[in-house]
Amino acid sequence: MIDFVTLCDYIGTFAFAISGIRLASAKQFDWFGAYVVGFVTAVGGGTIRDVMLNSTPFWMEQPSYLFVSGLALLFVIIFRRYVIRLNNTIFIFDAIGLGLFVVVGIEKTLNFGFPMWVAICMGTITGSAGGMMRDIFINEEPLVFRKDIYALACVFGGVVYWICLRFGLAVTLTQLFCAIGVILMRVVAVKYHISVPVLKGES
Amino acid sequence: MIDFVTLCDYIGTFAFAISGIRLASAKQFDWFGAYVVGFVTAVGGGTIRDVMLNSTPFWMEQPSYLFVSGLALLFVIIFRRYVIRLNNTIFIFDAIGLGLFVVVGIEKTLNFGFPMWVAICMGTITGSAGGMMRDIFINEEPLVFRKDIYALACVFGGVVYWICLRFGLAVTLTQLFCAIGVILMRVVAVKYHISVPVLKGES
Amino acid sequence: MIDFVTLCDYIGTFAFAISGIRLASAKQFDWFGAYVVGFVTAVGGGTIRDVMLNSTPFWMEQPSYLFVSGLALLFVIIFRRYVIRLNNTIFIFDAIGLGLFVVVGIEKTLNFGFPMWVAICMGTITGSAGGMMRDIFINEEPLVFRKDIYALACVFGGVVYWICLRFGLAVTLTQLFCAIGVILMRVVAVKYHISVPVLKGES
Repeated sequence: MIDFVTLCDYIGTFAFAISGIRLASAKQFDWFGAYVVGFVTAVGGGTIRDVMLNSTPFWMEQPSYLFVSGLALLFVIIFRRYVIRLNNTIFIFDAIGLGLFVVVGIEKTLNFGFPMWVAICMGTITGSAGGMMRDIFINEEPLVFRKDIYALACVFGGVVYWICLRFGLAVTLTQLFCAIGVILMRVVAVKYHISVPVLKGES
Repeated sequence: MIDFVTLCDYIGTFAFAISGIRLASAKQFDWFGAYVVGFVTAVGGGTIRDVMLNSTPFWMEQPSYLFVSGLALLFVIIFRRYVIRLNNTIFIFDAIGLGLFVVVGIEKTLNFGFPMWVAICMGTITGSAGGMMRDIFINEEPLVFRKDIYALACVFGGVVYWICLRFGLAVTLTQLFCAIGVILMRVVAVKYHISVPVLKGES
Repeated sequence: MIDFVTLCDYIGTFAFAISGIRLASAKQFDWFGAYVVGFVTAVGGGTIRDVMLNSTPFWMEQPSYLFVSGLALLFVIIFRRYVIRLNNTIFIFDAIGLGLFVVVGIEKTLNFGFPMWVAICMGTITGSAGGMMRDIFINEEPLVFRKDIYALACVFGGVVYWICLRFGLAVTLTQLFCAIGVILMRVVAVKYHISVPVLKGES
């Protein structure tokens, strides 16, 4: 049986892939293109993190991420008409995935011997760079920088992690609080339509 | 004298660079910008592969790729008016290059000790990520995901490689069949206007 | 006290970040998104260089680049109305940064044992890839390939470096002449509206 963390990892991958596949389908991508966009949305952030850490991209070590992205494609094809009704469920899956991805990114970076501020950067990249790559692929301005609080929720989770570490909490609790911090901030931001203020340009 | 494989490599680089330079010129890029787009189209896929394999990008080991891309720029500048008439020739060059790039990508990945499914991914990235980067640079939605069969032809070639390997064929034959698989699928797809079906979005 | 080179490095980072933040604000990015675009504009080129050299991205070794980008965001927020009047000063800062970034890129690449032509490529990437990434993020066609002489000024500086090295000049002088070459070419190109000719497309 797979453990709880692996389950959350698959759930997050599935939700991230679905967001990529849906946006690709809105742009008339073919099935294969939509699959690639879904896959990149799911693993892109972790891949950039791993390249910067000089480590082999995590998805090259086991084929499960390719499979889960394939399941996401099947899901969108089969349940196309009902997928909108599932928006709330997908949103929760996405938030859980985001929380976990941030924890994984911080963890791995600390294990490579980097200081906490680099780990927070890498946690944020792990969580939000995939969505950024998705928007670049489908030729839209990155949503993560313009709607609700997304990347900033990752930073917030990283700060929670840092504070917990400072107060000497156990690693498991620290990780849990970090993930909960990310998830809560996402849920609250979306529910109450809280956004980072837009930077006013020069007139 | 250069051997047959090197010749195919240069032909492919030349054809890939030309596709980048032509699309850049349609977007009013300057000469230098068009050169860069051409170069990135030609070497971008292999560069992403090498970065993921934790290897030095192949074009940094000898300047010939910079020269061949320069020749492609000269070619487009001088034969601008006649280049359209050469579309069929350029298409064949492009297909030959694609076939070779996929083989090179698979080969290198297997040499680094990765399993076959990673090699197929890397072969596909070697063949199609350059075209994807080209479309991102010129700010268009990636053509490789929307027209004819391109990235999928790379996957097909990878599967051919895998089957040949399973049946114990000699390496040279395996590589040849893989390249022929990619080229054939491209030619057939373009000649008979076969595409991967578009993923229908939610209405 | 910080030395002269470090000061130029911060000035360049500041100016590059400002160009990213201003363009992001014109696209209605939120504060955090504008900060990220500014940061990527400033460190993106050096990051791509370091990834290709198989080295840890330079900004992960000390947090000053994150701080300087933060200062640039504050600067744009506070002096929004007056920032246009400072265009000339920012341009000079940007040119100084460009000159330094090219020198740093060449230096590092040579130290890794690569030949001069790779160093010129890496110097050019260090100087201009950040601006390219900025334009991809804000979903515009890369300005560096279409306006004034930008990437080509980096190549020019690299050639100056190469010639000085050939004539046996001291390293410090070589670096100084390279930086001056980049800065002069930028200033002259902008002042006299010199551009690389546009590549005419097929009609």
